[in-house]
Amino acid sequence: MHQTSILNLKKRLTLPELTSGILAGNRVTLSKGITLVESILPEDEEMAAALLEALLPYTGQALRIGITGVPGVGKSTFIETFGSYLTSINKKLAVLTIDPSSQLTHGSILGDKTRMESLSKNPNAYIRPSASGSTLGGIAHKTREAALLCEAAGFDTIIIETVGIGQSETAVKNMVDFFLLLMLAGAGDELQGIKKGIMEMADALVITKADGENKKKAAMAVADYTHALHLFQLPASGWTARVMTCSAKENEGIAEVWDAIQQFETHTKLNGFFVQNRKQQNKTWLYDCFNHLLQQEVKKSQTLGAQVNELEKKVEAGSISAYQAAKEMLKKFKAS
Amino acid sequence: MHQTSILNLKKRLTLPELTSGILAGNRVTLSKGITLVESILPEDEEMAAALLEALLPYTGQALRIGITGVPGVGKSTFIETFGSYLTSINKKLAVLTIDPSSQLTHGSILGDKTRMESLSKNPNAYIRPSASGSTLGGIAHKTREAALLCEAAGFDTIIIETVGIGQSETAVKNMVDFFLLLMLAGAGDELQGIKKGIMEMADALVITKADGENKKKAAMAVADYTHALHLFQLPASGWTARVMTCSAKENEGIAEVWDAIQQFETHTKLNGFFVQNRKQQNKTWLYDCFNHLLQQEVKKSQTLGAQVNELEKKVEAGSISAYQAAKEMLKKFKAS
Repeated sequence: MHQTSILNLKKRLTLPELTSGILAGNRVTLSKGITLVESILPEDEEMAAALLEALLPYTGQALRIGITGVPGVGKSTFIETFGSYLTSINKKLAVLTIDPSSQLTHGSILGDKTRMESLSKNPNAYIRPSASGSTLGGIAHKTREAALLCEAAGFDTIIIETVGIGQSETAVKNMVDFFLLLMLAGAGDELQGIKKGIMEMADALVITKADGENKKKAAMAVADYTHALHLFQLPASGWTARVMTCSAKENEGIAEVWDAIQQFETHTKLNGFFVQNRKQQNKTWLYDCFNHLLQQEVKKSQTLGAQVNELEKKVEAGSISAYQAAKEMLKKFKAS
Repeated sequence: MHQTSILNLKKRLTLPELTSGILAGNRVTLSKGITLVESILPEDEEMAAALLEALLPYTGQALRIGITGVPGVGKSTFIETFGSYLTSINKKLAVLTIDPSSQLTHGSILGDKTRMESLSKNPNAYIRPSASGSTLGGIAHKTREAALLCEAAGFDTIIIETVGIGQSETAVKNMVDFFLLLMLAGAGDELQGIKKGIMEMADALVITKADGENKKKAAMAVADYTHALHLFQLPASGWTARVMTCSAKENEGIAEVWDAIQQFETHTKLNGFFVQNRKQQNKTWLYDCFNHLLQQEVKKSQTLGAQVNELEKKVEAGSISAYQAAKEMLKKFKAS
């Protein structure tokens, strides 16, 4: 079986093969489907769209959890422990990691699969590291699609992880039901300053590494963050962010995090926010796609291309303002 | 004079009044012009565009410097000291601060004007705190325009400051000639992890607060960062980022920062990067404007509006994929 899988990786599957394979929960097919969806080749885009369209009726049942935190906070360890707990209570878990890379080198900082060794061998868990595009929109676009494919493949819990340098948090917040922020106790004021905007997005703050000598600091951090969170407005979900501690090392506080997530789910399903939020997220997705298609259209058109080129040159030279050029571009685009 | 200024703030100026006032270097008019440019009212947009068009021939002569760093690094103090130095060597300085706010509350974290007290009273300096929009594009769009207005008003050095939570750095990098990253010595690994993507954008790293007991730590940080920077590829500018220390308190290292910036300017003007970079930035600006106008167009059109509404509902309900809906939207948009 394992050998066939490796051979299969080389072969290009047809749309029906992809669809049925993913619906049957075949991981190799799922991986190929995600690769297709992530492809930047224009010829793959139609097929990716068709695949998604075919799978759409089988999506939407999973709970989507975003997890973020600065490097060093222990995200991989937390996801390993938390993920193992989830599979132990019969959840089927897919973990998608967004690698924000560097805008300049397009390099991957971490090889995610090797970071979560035990989880990657767990038969009820699926880990997929996603190479990010150069744009935030690009990251968001593909991860959202990858999550839907996982749902169609039967995963009922989706974790979307970001590396936490601040660029991708908003994008992930727009894709998940629950947003979890991992924090270190006593990491200094500067760090907490950075986290301000992100803290407001969080549905739970979990202080990691709350073991041994850290325990006291972690308890103090809980008090501090609880206080800080009270300064924020109650979000649209009507849910006050929980502040909790955990130790992946001592396996403490893990079940409690899951409890909080379930309470959130019940709370927001009762008050209507859960459904409303997903609707809003789908709308955001629509406009991401629309902007993407528009840009492609402009790039594709030859005549338009020449005109756009000329406008580009004028703007580059500073002889007309970008706004005026954009207005002309729009006129030409509509006439094309 | 001061009293007239306050009265003037209430009155709406005409386009010729704005244009001539800004070109004459009138600060009150400049402030009004920036307010116009930052306005989100559709009726202001045409006038803002016309103002920019009129002023465009008088822009482009200033040196544009981006400054970032995490909260607590001493950005305001640095800009106060650095700005005072610049005015002492007969520079006319405009400081634009981008406030990334929180996406949820749209609130301003800091009142920037009060943060730089002595500089705000300096007759050769102009400080403008900009409330940011809810989107990154929004932030970039308006700040770029505000900077051009300052240039037309005769300011020859523009500082664009960001609060440094990672969301706006890329946008600012796309607007400036020189990007300066302020760092603290010994702020811990987590912090340096966060800064990875941003460090690669920097043309200089300045370790702040290098005084008293901090001096030794700062020198060590210089060695560390210099080493770290060598791991990066040489950027397109052909300029290796400088690592330096400064103390705003003891007024040390300030002139050296300016020296480095001037060396960068000479270097990149000689190798052509300076001009090439500005061209590229103008192109980015063009596409920002184009996307903005497209979105407005879609919002404006009534018939299109109804059709878009219907598509939105379908996507919200999950009955069609965002991609398919976006494709239909594009078709309808072009037919409108």
